[in-house]
Amino acid sequence: MPVVSPVRPLPASLEALGDATSYADRIFGMLDKIELFEDFERDEIRLLAGFMRAYRAQPGTEIIREGDGGDYMLLTIEGEVDIFKNDHLGLRKRIAIVGAGKTLGEMSMIDGEPRFSTCIAATPLVFSVLTRDALSRIIAEQPLLGAKILMELVVMLSQRLRQTGAKLVELMDK
Amino acid sequence: MPVVSPVRPLPASLEALGDATSYADRIFGMLDKIELFEDFERDEIRLLAGFMRAYRAQPGTEIIREGDGGDYMLLTIEGEVDIFKNDHLGLRKRIAIVGAGKTLGEMSMIDGEPRFSTCIAATPLVFSVLTRDALSRIIAEQPLLGAKILMELVVMLSQRLRQTGAKLVELMDK
Repeated sequence: MPVVSPVRPLPASLEALGDATSYADRIFGMLDKIELFEDFERDEIRLLAGFMRAYRAQPGTEIIREGDGGDYMLLTIEGEVDIFKNDHLGLRKRIAIVGAGKTLGEMSMIDGEPRFSTCIAATPLVFSVLTRDALSRIIAEQPLLGAKILMELVVMLSQRLRQTGAKLVELMDK
Repeated sequence: MPVVSPVRPLPASLEALGDATSYADRIFGMLDKIELFEDFERDEIRLLAGFMRAYRAQPGTEIIREGDGGDYMLLTIEGEVDIFKNDHLGLRKRIAIVGAGKTLGEMSMIDGEPRFSTCIAATPLVFSVLTRDALSRIIAEQPLLGAKILMELVVMLSQRLRQTGAKLVELMDK
């Protein structure tokens, strides 16, 4: 069984921008980049945005730390995020830089297990947050929207699992 | 983009046993083995079983073939299944033997992409089948049950992805 890490809340230094409804049109405008929500209609994004909170972070803010517990995912709206992972010596290595329209932290939102990587704002950053509690409320109050989000999560995870599984089989073949 | 393979139907040699309602109690009785449904109540299993069909296969029946398209998953109820995967030379290698209470083929049910492995009945086998269409009907007609199934799928895939990702990171470290 995994070690359950305490849930780490959002950093206190973030500027709260209210619920994400005022960003619904911008989110909808970059939907082709957002793998998780690409099939959503404008009305569905507006509904979903009402369940998310928006925040602004200054460059250098560590939003998610590898190994911590967590119960929310991010959707980046403006700016860039550096993604780091510790190697087997515990040295932090940058594994990606992501821009607007990227979701981060879905796995811990879902299963509560430790964060897989560290996410640090590389520029001034605006993002919205979906917590596990908010997802539960969506499922209870808007079951069709809830099912659509879950179905998209399932498809996304399934595709990542195929890619990762294929890479693993390839490496083990060698 | 993945190549879309034609969906391969269930083999014609199967003996159809009707809907899976008559197996609901047996399924419920081995729920601790069924990762996908372990949190389900008896009533939910009964409801779900009404959306599944049950079949009997003779030993040697190839139920799922690697690379084929597919739109259903299996739940084994009685008997054993051999799981094979082709290596890079195209040679079929047995990678697992699974008994009752195992789900197989969830990923293709969800995303329609080619089957990851081949499943052949190792003994006389009774199993039930959940198709993508049936899952869509569950979501439309029983949205809370639908959300629960999807949530379990998400958690299961997320955990497999973590395990596979961790193995990959470990191998790449070497």
